[in-house]
Amino acid sequence: MEKLLARALAGDTRAIGRLISLVEADTPSSKEIMKAIYPKTGKAQVIGITGSPGAGKSTFVNRLIARFKAEGKKVGVIAIDPSSPFTGGAILGDRLRMQDHAVDSDVFIRSMGSRGNLGGVSRGTHEGALILDACGFDVVIIETVGVGQSEVDIVKIADTVCLILTPGMGDDVQIMKAGIMEIADIFVVNKADREGADKVAADVQVMLKMLGEREWVPPVALVSSNKNTGVDEVREIIRKHGDYLNSSEEGRRRRWSQLQMEVEAILRGEISLLVERSWSARRSDELMEMLSQRKADPYTLAGDIIKTLLK
Amino acid sequence: MEKLLARALAGDTRAIGRLISLVEADTPSSKEIMKAIYPKTGKAQVIGITGSPGAGKSTFVNRLIARFKAEGKKVGVIAIDPSSPFTGGAILGDRLRMQDHAVDSDVFIRSMGSRGNLGGVSRGTHEGALILDACGFDVVIIETVGVGQSEVDIVKIADTVCLILTPGMGDDVQIMKAGIMEIADIFVVNKADREGADKVAADVQVMLKMLGEREWVPPVALVSSNKNTGVDEVREIIRKHGDYLNSSEEGRRRRWSQLQMEVEAILRGEISLLVERSWSARRSDELMEMLSQRKADPYTLAGDIIKTLLK
Repeated sequence: MEKLLARALAGDTRAIGRLISLVEADTPSSKEIMKAIYPKTGKAQVIGITGSPGAGKSTFVNRLIARFKAEGKKVGVIAIDPSSPFTGGAILGDRLRMQDHAVDSDVFIRSMGSRGNLGGVSRGTHEGALILDACGFDVVIIETVGVGQSEVDIVKIADTVCLILTPGMGDDVQIMKAGIMEIADIFVVNKADREGADKVAADVQVMLKMLGEREWVPPVALVSSNKNTGVDEVREIIRKHGDYLNSSEEGRRRRWSQLQMEVEAILRGEISLLVERSWSARRSDELMEMLSQRKADPYTLAGDIIKTLLK
Repeated sequence: MEKLLARALAGDTRAIGRLISLVEADTPSSKEIMKAIYPKTGKAQVIGITGSPGAGKSTFVNRLIARFKAEGKKVGVIAIDPSSPFTGGAILGDRLRMQDHAVDSDVFIRSMGSRGNLGGVSRGTHEGALILDACGFDVVIIETVGVGQSEVDIVKIADTVCLILTPGMGDDVQIMKAGIMEIADIFVVNKADREGADKVAADVQVMLKMLGEREWVPPVALVSSNKNTGVDEVREIIRKHGDYLNSSEEGRRRRWSQLQMEVEAILRGEISLLVERSWSARRSDELMEMLSQRKADPYTLAGDIIKTLLK
C-alpha cells in the first residue's frame, strides 16, 4: 500500500487508477488511503461540468482538456456514467469521444458509475477527485450525468460549476430546472453555430438579473465545440473564477461549506455502517413476526438499537 | 397530547389532521405519537395509486372513494403534491377534484408535500398512512406524484399498488419505465372510452408474460372514471389482492420486507440527527480553518467524533 501510494503520488497513471478503484470499492483500506492523500489535496481547481444529456458536455470537455494541455497543465477527468439503480449497469457511450487523450500521461480520464447514488455524485466521485488532486493534476474536471439531483449536487464538490446549455432543446426548461441557475458559476451556450444560441444567452442574462445582485456575476460564453470557438474564453473565465474564490470571502465560505458537507458525509457513512451491523445482528424471524403482529414497534426498536451503540 | 391521541383514535377528523401535522413537521413529539399509534395499525388495506401525471389518478381515486363509501367503509387519502426541494412550495391543483368528499367524516383527504424527498414518498407519507390506519380508516389510499422514484417507492408502503395507464400517452414509455411493471399489483387502463385503450391493455398483457410466472398475476382492468365504468371491477380485484396477501407466503414476505425498510428508514433518521448533533458540538472556525489548510483531515476527524460518541 505504501508503495502504491508513493507511485500514485509520483504520477504513475496505473497506480492512480488502482487507488481510485480501491477507494471506489469502499475497501477496508479506503480510509487509510484517504487519510494519506488528504494533506496533499487542495491544490487543483475542480471544475464541474453539468447540463442536460445531449448538450454536448463530453465534446466540450474534450476541447477544454486540449486547452489546458496546451498550457502544460495536467488534467484529470471523472465522467459519471448513468447507471440504473435497478441493474447497477453502467452505460458507456460518448465517453469514447474523450479517448483522444486517453493514452496521454498528462491526462487521466476515468468513468465512474453512479451506483447506489441516484444523484450521480457519490462519495466515490469526491474521493476520486481528491486523489487526482493529490497526485498532481492541476485541474480536475467532473462531468455529471446532467439529470436531476446530480446537477445540483456537483456544487458540493466543484470549485467552479459550468452549466452547458444548447439552442433548441426547450431552453426555458433547461435553464429553469430548480436550483441550477443558482449554482452555475459559468454559463456555456454550446453549439453556438446553431440558430437560437443568442436567444439562449439573452434568456440566461435576463434570468440572472432576476436572481439579484451577486459579487460574482456568472459570465455567459458562446462556444462551438465542433468549430472549437469560444473555448479560450471559457478557460479565461475559469481562471478568473479560481482567482475570485482564492481572494474572496465567498470563496472561503464555499470551501468551508464543502468541508462541512464532507465531514457530514463521512460521519453518515461511518454511523450507517455501525447501525446496519447492529440491526442485522438483531434481526430475527421472531422479531419480524413481533413487528408484524404489532407486539413490537419499529420506533422503540430503532431507539434501542441506537442506545446500545452510544455511550 | 394524551387527549389529542384519544380524540384522533376515536375518529375526530380535526384531531387526526393535527396529529398528521405534528408528525409531518417532525416535532419532538413525533416519535411518541408514532409509538402510541403503532400497536393499533395493521388493519387498513393501504392502496398505492401511481401513474404518470395526466393519467387521471385523482379522478379515479374520487370514483374509488365513492365505491368504498357505498360499502360503508371509511376511507383515508393521502395525496402527495409535487414540491420543489428548494422552495418547499406545494402546488395544489387537481386536489380540488377530490373535494366532493372533503366535508365527509367517513372520508379524510390530506395533501402532503414531498419536501425533502425528491421521490415524493417520504417518512411523513408513511407515518400519515399509519395514523389513518390506527384511527379506524378501513382503506388508506396514497396517490403519488407519478414521477420518477415515487412510483417505485410506493411499494415500500402500499399493500396493493395500482398503476394507472391511459391511451395515447406514449404508452410504451409509460409502461416500460424502470421497475414499474414489476411492482404493480393491478393495472388500470383509465379513460377506456378513448381509442387505443384495448391496445394498451394488450400491451400490458404481453409485457406481463415477459416477466415470467408469478403467483399473483396482476389483472388488467379497463376503467372510465368519467363514465364511472370498471371501478367496481377494480374494487373486486383490490379485495382479492388483499385476501391473497393475507393468506400467502408472498404476503408475509412483503410485510416483513416493508417492516425492515421501515426500521431502516427510522434508523437513518436517527443517524442524521446524531451526525448533526455530534458534529455541530465540535465545529469551530479554528477547526474549519485547519481542515481548509489541510492541517486536519475529515477522515481522522470523523473517526474521532465517532469514537467519542460510541461505546
